[in-house]
Amino acid sequence: MTVLRVVVIGGDAVGMTAASHIKRRLRDAVDVTVIQEQQWTSYSACGIPYWIAGEVNGPTRLVARSPERHRENGIDVRIGTRATAVDVDRQTVQARVLQTGEKLTFPYDHLVLGTGAKPVFPHVPGLHLPGVLKVHTLDDGLAATAALARKPRCAVVLGAGFLGLEVAEAAITRGMDTIVLEMAAEPMQTLDLDMGARLRLAMIDRGAKLQVNEPVEALIAGPDGRVAAVRSEQGEYPAEIVFMGLGLSPRSDLAVAAGLPVGEAGGILTDSRQRVLGQENIWAGGDCTEVHDRVSGRRCYMPQGTHANKHGRVIGLNISGQEATFPGIVGTAVVRFQDVEVARVGLLESEGPALGLDLACATIDAKTRAGYFPGATPITVKMIGDRATGRLLGCQIIGGPGSGKRIDIAATAIWNRMAVADVIDMDLAYSPPLSPPWDPVQTAARRLAAIL
Amino acid sequence: MTVLRVVVIGGDAVGMTAASHIKRRLRDAVDVTVIQEQQWTSYSACGIPYWIAGEVNGPTRLVARSPERHRENGIDVRIGTRATAVDVDRQTVQARVLQTGEKLTFPYDHLVLGTGAKPVFPHVPGLHLPGVLKVHTLDDGLAATAALARKPRCAVVLGAGFLGLEVAEAAITRGMDTIVLEMAAEPMQTLDLDMGARLRLAMIDRGAKLQVNEPVEALIAGPDGRVAAVRSEQGEYPAEIVFMGLGLSPRSDLAVAAGLPVGEAGGILTDSRQRVLGQENIWAGGDCTEVHDRVSGRRCYMPQGTHANKHGRVIGLNISGQEATFPGIVGTAVVRFQDVEVARVGLLESEGPALGLDLACATIDAKTRAGYFPGATPITVKMIGDRATGRLLGCQIIGGPGSGKRIDIAATAIWNRMAVADVIDMDLAYSPPLSPPWDPVQTAARRLAAIL
Repeated sequence: MTVLRVVVIGGDAVGMTAASHIKRRLRDAVDVTVIQEQQWTSYSACGIPYWIAGEVNGPTRLVARSPERHRENGIDVRIGTRATAVDVDRQTVQARVLQTGEKLTFPYDHLVLGTGAKPVFPHVPGLHLPGVLKVHTLDDGLAATAALARKPRCAVVLGAGFLGLEVAEAAITRGMDTIVLEMAAEPMQTLDLDMGARLRLAMIDRGAKLQVNEPVEALIAGPDGRVAAVRSEQGEYPAEIVFMGLGLSPRSDLAVAAGLPVGEAGGILTDSRQRVLGQENIWAGGDCTEVHDRVSGRRCYMPQGTHANKHGRVIGLNISGQEATFPGIVGTAVVRFQDVEVARVGLLESEGPALGLDLACATIDAKTRAGYFPGATPITVKMIGDRATGRLLGCQIIGGPGSGKRIDIAATAIWNRMAVADVIDMDLAYSPPLSPPWDPVQTAARRLAAIL
Repeated sequence: MTVLRVVVIGGDAVGMTAASHIKRRLRDAVDVTVIQEQQWTSYSACGIPYWIAGEVNGPTRLVARSPERHRENGIDVRIGTRATAVDVDRQTVQARVLQTGEKLTFPYDHLVLGTGAKPVFPHVPGLHLPGVLKVHTLDDGLAATAALARKPRCAVVLGAGFLGLEVAEAAITRGMDTIVLEMAAEPMQTLDLDMGARLRLAMIDRGAKLQVNEPVEALIAGPDGRVAAVRSEQGEYPAEIVFMGLGLSPRSDLAVAAGLPVGEAGGILTDSRQRVLGQENIWAGGDCTEVHDRVSGRRCYMPQGTHANKHGRVIGLNISGQEATFPGIVGTAVVRFQDVEVARVGLLESEGPALGLDLACATIDAKTRAGYFPGATPITVKMIGDRATGRLLGCQIIGGPGSGKRIDIAATAIWNRMAVADVIDMDLAYSPPLSPPWDPVQTAARRLAAIL
């Protein structure tokens, strides 16, 4: 019996999910080797800010399945090993064992690329000073933990996007005097500016220090050689710790070097089965790839653990001989900053012109629960529709506990190409402790439908 | 100018929503008269248990809009007035002012019936003893408040459905030793029995006293003539207060007496514009009507404030000269018992045979948040699909905070006739404090799709 050789580069969501599916289905008919640079597998990078905050015991609690567990399942996991080149013609992967320098060659019948993302850095001096921290891998988390042991009193977070907000919350929870610097006019560029402004006010209400329109110019060292301050055009902020909260870009260097296609954002391009374009037996998924946006009809880069998990499953099924496709995304995302939940899906109002769409939008203020119910908090819903078709194309939510996951109603509606007017009449769940009789998403739909 | 005469019977969700829409749109071209037996309008009956619990200041906080406010908007609200007969041929409503006995006749061009529901009573002796309480109207709430002033130490709740659970929570919150008696094998007959059993265990875990398979036989008076105990076949339970928690039946007597059509459950029958079948100018909605179930394709009785509000809007638009329809329901409902949230939508597994459907189902246990995140609590999702078509037909959820409103994902999916397999890949929101990477609804869809 010929044994299928599957080589996987990257041991997190995409790679280990695919590897597990393949091994579980094909058993002795397959050899699965995973090349993983770090010592961890199947971990939650999204949990790192909460580890830093002290809310979660890292790194172990963030590891869903260790290399040992995967090995018990018959997967050959090579940790501490860096893939250095892919030879598409010879169907081999070159790798190096980091500790020994040993060079290895792995021939493959199928190759899976789950190389993930890398943090975005600003182009400023001082980035490599001690005390400048990333929150991307569990090793970053360990480095952050070590830095926190020095009991820093002040921190600067670069960037007020999803990651920046999570890290800022962590730094504040740790008791650090924390300033968030954002170069754009408002936090969270995945929101429209009017909603970004609301978020900014909500953050300031909660005592957060957020400076917008303020790109960083340099990180400045103190006498001990560690980072001591962050300089922007407007001023200089003391910072015993600086967190990178600027988001992610695809880690696709290996793919590019192998001649594989990447898109405008630098992500590897695949078909809907997650097969790399132009390749028979190379698959890619997760944060190193671009995805199909079902709303705009375009490719985009939207690194999310949810997509990575789904890609891993789709790749695993396909290599195992089933037919599976990834149907694309609608751009759903949610983040919590203290008691404020922020969520978005679909198009922004501001994206209309570039896409040639005439968009209408409506913004409503409601409550998360029945208005009279204790703990009812404000929720703002902005809804965006297409004047030509009446379709729901986007939704943004900011509000108290219970607000964020309401975006799933809009996400499911957009997924199904619903008209705004049809959202009004949907049968959604109501109970005074959990919702007003008209869910705020429906109240927004009523307002928007009247405009459309 | 001929002024349109609209008479509305019932001053809550359906009636006042319709009246407000009509008056706002037609202004001086319409006279809107609302006949309301109670002294309140536009109130939240769903909030009464929380008033009893002492969490909400009733009755005022439960009134969204008072008769005075409606009058300021030009609506002629007649409180304390009971509609006694409808003459369909003469197009008049007979009414009686309760305090004076004065008889009134209201001619109409359009009649709106929003007569609501009445509580279901068991057929047992002792129901009218002092201390036996309903939780249906604000007057019931006042009566309950008066009874609570006597500082009762023990209560029995009849029925463990949605209302029974809410009232039981209220009684427990008030410090009463509370027993819930349910005649069926498990609480919440709108769930399948296996999910009902999980709910029962969750309630018992929280110290609730719940007796199932135990129909009540009699309410027994004490020496003071007030209720003192509840007797079932199995025993006798002390009860200084007895709450009716048995649900609702349509209040359609007036319609029946007028010769208007009602369905099997006794609810008034309407077309999709909420016009009473066979009538040109009589409209009905809310808890006195039956609704179209989009999943089973049948009529059913499902009294819900959400439907009532939508019906009121649809009726208001239609009478104002617009065309509006109510597209039906999918049977969405949610309730909270302490920190347990229970929700359901669509068909039960047990309904398959009667509908001639071959249903498959899957039940999964997951967490409400990322597994490592503090406050992640268990959530159980049962999902039901059609073997013939692969369609998602039902979903039931029991879990900790954040569980209940997840039913809206399934409700929106069922509304759009999605296949179970397509739910797996939907783009739902993920952040560790709010959800695992696979939303539990999708985890259930994966399990069920594998079976289908």
